[in-house]
Amino acid sequence: MMKQFFKKRFNPQKKVFQGSSFHGKQTGKESIRIVPIGGSGNVTKNMFAYELRYDGLVRDILLVDCGIGFPDADMYGVDLVIPDTRYLADKKQYIRGLVFTHGHDDHIGAIPYIYPKLGNIPLFAPPLAAAFANLKLKESKLQVRVKPMQFTDTIHLGPFRISFVRMTHSVPDTSHLVIETPIGIFYHGSDFKFDFDPLDGKKSEIEKINAIGKQGVLCMMSDCLGSERTGFTPSEQKIRDTIERELAMCPGKFLFTTQSSNISRIQLAIDIALKNNRKVAFFGRSINKNVEEAANLGYMKFPRDMIVRDRDLKKMPPSKMFLIVAGAQGQPESALTRMANDSHMFVTIAEGDTVMFSADPIPGNENSMNTVIDQIYRSGARVSYTNITEDLHVSGHGSQGDHMLLLSAIGPSYVIPTGGTYQHMMNYRTVAMECGYKKSQILMPEEGDILEFKIGQPPKIAQHITLENIMVDGLGVGDVGSVVLRDRQTIANEGIVVVVVPVEKSTGRVTSEPDIISRGFVYIKESGALLTRAKKVVNDSLRVRHGRAMDWHFMRELIEDNLQGFLKKETGRQPLIVPVILEV
Amino acid sequence: MMKQFFKKRFNPQKKVFQGSSFHGKQTGKESIRIVPIGGSGNVTKNMFAYELRYDGLVRDILLVDCGIGFPDADMYGVDLVIPDTRYLADKKQYIRGLVFTHGHDDHIGAIPYIYPKLGNIPLFAPPLAAAFANLKLKESKLQVRVKPMQFTDTIHLGPFRISFVRMTHSVPDTSHLVIETPIGIFYHGSDFKFDFDPLDGKKSEIEKINAIGKQGVLCMMSDCLGSERTGFTPSEQKIRDTIERELAMCPGKFLFTTQSSNISRIQLAIDIALKNNRKVAFFGRSINKNVEEAANLGYMKFPRDMIVRDRDLKKMPPSKMFLIVAGAQGQPESALTRMANDSHMFVTIAEGDTVMFSADPIPGNENSMNTVIDQIYRSGARVSYTNITEDLHVSGHGSQGDHMLLLSAIGPSYVIPTGGTYQHMMNYRTVAMECGYKKSQILMPEEGDILEFKIGQPPKIAQHITLENIMVDGLGVGDVGSVVLRDRQTIANEGIVVVVVPVEKSTGRVTSEPDIISRGFVYIKESGALLTRAKKVVNDSLRVRHGRAMDWHFMRELIEDNLQGFLKKETGRQPLIVPVILEV
Repeated sequence: MMKQFFKKRFNPQKKVFQGSSFHGKQTGKESIRIVPIGGSGNVTKNMFAYELRYDGLVRDILLVDCGIGFPDADMYGVDLVIPDTRYLADKKQYIRGLVFTHGHDDHIGAIPYIYPKLGNIPLFAPPLAAAFANLKLKESKLQVRVKPMQFTDTIHLGPFRISFVRMTHSVPDTSHLVIETPIGIFYHGSDFKFDFDPLDGKKSEIEKINAIGKQGVLCMMSDCLGSERTGFTPSEQKIRDTIERELAMCPGKFLFTTQSSNISRIQLAIDIALKNNRKVAFFGRSINKNVEEAANLGYMKFPRDMIVRDRDLKKMPPSKMFLIVAGAQGQPESALTRMANDSHMFVTIAEGDTVMFSADPIPGNENSMNTVIDQIYRSGARVSYTNITEDLHVSGHGSQGDHMLLLSAIGPSYVIPTGGTYQHMMNYRTVAMECGYKKSQILMPEEGDILEFKIGQPPKIAQHITLENIMVDGLGVGDVGSVVLRDRQTIANEGIVVVVVPVEKSTGRVTSEPDIISRGFVYIKESGALLTRAKKVVNDSLRVRHGRAMDWHFMRELIEDNLQGFLKKETGRQPLIVPVILEV
Repeated sequence: MMKQFFKKRFNPQKKVFQGSSFHGKQTGKESIRIVPIGGSGNVTKNMFAYELRYDGLVRDILLVDCGIGFPDADMYGVDLVIPDTRYLADKKQYIRGLVFTHGHDDHIGAIPYIYPKLGNIPLFAPPLAAAFANLKLKESKLQVRVKPMQFTDTIHLGPFRISFVRMTHSVPDTSHLVIETPIGIFYHGSDFKFDFDPLDGKKSEIEKINAIGKQGVLCMMSDCLGSERTGFTPSEQKIRDTIERELAMCPGKFLFTTQSSNISRIQLAIDIALKNNRKVAFFGRSINKNVEEAANLGYMKFPRDMIVRDRDLKKMPPSKMFLIVAGAQGQPESALTRMANDSHMFVTIAEGDTVMFSADPIPGNENSMNTVIDQIYRSGARVSYTNITEDLHVSGHGSQGDHMLLLSAIGPSYVIPTGGTYQHMMNYRTVAMECGYKKSQILMPEEGDILEFKIGQPPKIAQHITLENIMVDGLGVGDVGSVVLRDRQTIANEGIVVVVVPVEKSTGRVTSEPDIISRGFVYIKESGALLTRAKKVVNDSLRVRHGRAMDWHFMRELIEDNLQGFLKKETGRQPLIVPVILEV
């Protein structure tokens, strides 16, 4: 009866939603909630909770991914951002485990910060992702390790049965997850593209996808980042010819830079170097670490003697060198930036060399990347980058064609675009509607929206939680909050003025002239007159004190208001004003 | 003899360099220096000085353009950047005048700031550029006005004879300058493209270019910003079909946003609105100002009754509206951003509306533009932007084909790529070399290099000057210098800690507990323990004072060092520490 009802109302794909293949009995009181711990409408900071409730009460939680995010331009001084797990704080006993989909930092990078908050839960991932995550846990001196899983494995975590689907992306061992629950199958389709000729020969498991589609999927989460592009995203193979062509034209050193987790592309570069009788050296901590780990696990293969140590490069002719260098985004502290600025210990870029950027700038990084390109050009070297050279980089994310293929093979009753901003979600929705989906089947949760799925009912937003950016700055996690950040922003743009008023503790009498200290406001040595007049404004404010003696809260506000007004009129700026009443 | 020599050594184009058509006699002691007042390797902040010297001494100076630049991301709080005219400070009596090439802010925008420093010199520009510059001078309450010149006019300024060549670009009345000097002809080829079918029907004056080329040009400055693109830059006409197609699909309001100086494209939008029976309203101060000025001068034509005032919109059906809105780059305070955030007084974006971005993001603006796009999508409106729609925008700058055409028509002995960064200059050089130029003919001055041209000698770098970014912040011009900026950067990223130590004036005795105030560092309410321990560090430092009493300079450094070390260890951060010794 329930099934009939559901079929009638909720299956526009003409495929029956069959509940779950999970061997539990359905009572109608179960529900699954999807909680976007890392936020919806985010490209990075991926972390989701699948929550089984019975009669509205939490029973079991499965976590998927635990990634870092990158600070916005106005998050001054913030190193990275991690998911806000406050929602889980009182539900720790229900968490059955965490499964990682693949080894990118925006899916694994936050685990050292967040694991201690989750309780002693088991962690799982495909082998390479497990290895990358374990490097991070080791570095943070945590004892726990991620258990590497094969793609044929199935994990049972409470009522959840999780199996893996191998997908192609820009790092090996990327997976989608099939999550069987008491109310139906959820397909967790994070970052992917269909690379029909992947460099490592390991294709997306389309036959598995088809089989799952036939079982009937209630809801699919899907990567949507590439949904603005038409057609299919090209294969990584496309870069092979570009490297070979650029290398053939290079009489000097060949410097190759790409994302340091893109093990397959680095392997491709090594193969081409080998074929051309060049020795390879790696520069950059992340590349060295990833290559070593991938080679240890058998994900990379090269004769060890073709790798030279950085300090041995000096003995070699430039025409025999192939350098794989971190810093494809123009990161200020990267090996490539140091080489470009001629401040690297072992490598100087010179005329005859070629630097190939096998990467597109991530939005916001254009300027730093361009600065590095400018610097390299000054050395006389050839630079090969997206604006002037084709086929230097292909995305790891599927385009509209990839999405249509996955969507029609899985045929879920509902789909949630993830891993993109609202504009990508909207474009994904357009694509899905071109595949015959109705608007109501494409769920577009906003930041903090928790979707609930119940048998026989359309999904709805069951709850809305407030998610904050948990900011990591230096050793501090979360101690830079909105107050500190707001002060940083004000001071960064307007400067700070501290007014110290010394008063006698016992009498409240102002004992001497107030002192004014400013930083980032005006150049003090040339602004004596302005500060003298500012002092007068403070003195005048203090005179009002008669009759309101000792009300220093009032005095502080008065000084702040008067000085603010004065400085705004004089300079057009509104520095942060900090009145300090110093009892002496 | 001299001519022979020159021909032999410096004329690989097989065109004789004929000195100047200027009717002065050459003595061999004249030289022309090109001073990049606004910097070389810059896209914006354009300002050049052509300086005639006799026997090494300055005789006459001609200025070209006076534009603003945009602050780098780390120039916190800086509104804009203007050229550094210190080089001209002791040469004012030699400045004969200033000529503007076209009406873009990066060529005219700094004149209100810089005119007062130049002495009472005459200013010239093509009509629309003169009008736009005069708006700025009027707003700044300056009396001087730019004299509008026709393209057939010639200006005589001291020994310089300047004539105009009409070029196509993204603002009407764009010109190149032919500058005849006693030692030869300089062709000042600032921003341009060859639009063979311009919207206003006014084509580039190719016949003039050919004639000048035949006279023999010593040196050409050339726009190089588009030198990474192959082929020719398309005509503005290309956008016509896109607007019509998008408008045809739009049942609600149509919002069109583009660069506010692109008068021709705005006229095109108005024409299409008219054809489709929609009324037009303008939003944004810059668009209103530019349209009004351009209409007054006859550069725009539309029936006045098709323009509606913002407050009258409420009476109209959305399907009759065509709104031209400022904010194509996602500028936070723009009309479009306010509409997207639903905080605009007259316009609410809704389902059925279309917002068309007829602009590409300027590098660095991607994130703010994407944020606005996301917000608009949330309203349910359709958004048309570069990532998903073709032919929304064409550049105003020539591509490689445009450059080859200009270069071969002018055939200068030397060429200086300008208006681009080093990477654009390098790509321009590659293009020029494909046209048969030798590397030595393509001059690549670095920031501050002054090139000198003398008859019978190859050009050389005669002098190097240090150029600073003169920053405008609020009402202050140049008062935010490197010290203030460095403080802002430190505080923005790490915070500030002020330590106040009250001491008795007469004895130097510390009278009471030091006080510690921090902002942007840690959240004080939750960091009591840290600050208590920091106070102890300060107290311990003060104890060392025995034997070194009154040496407060030493004490300040000691407090700074000790506190710096302590806070770095505890928090991983290095805030700006400001010790204040307060005499009470």
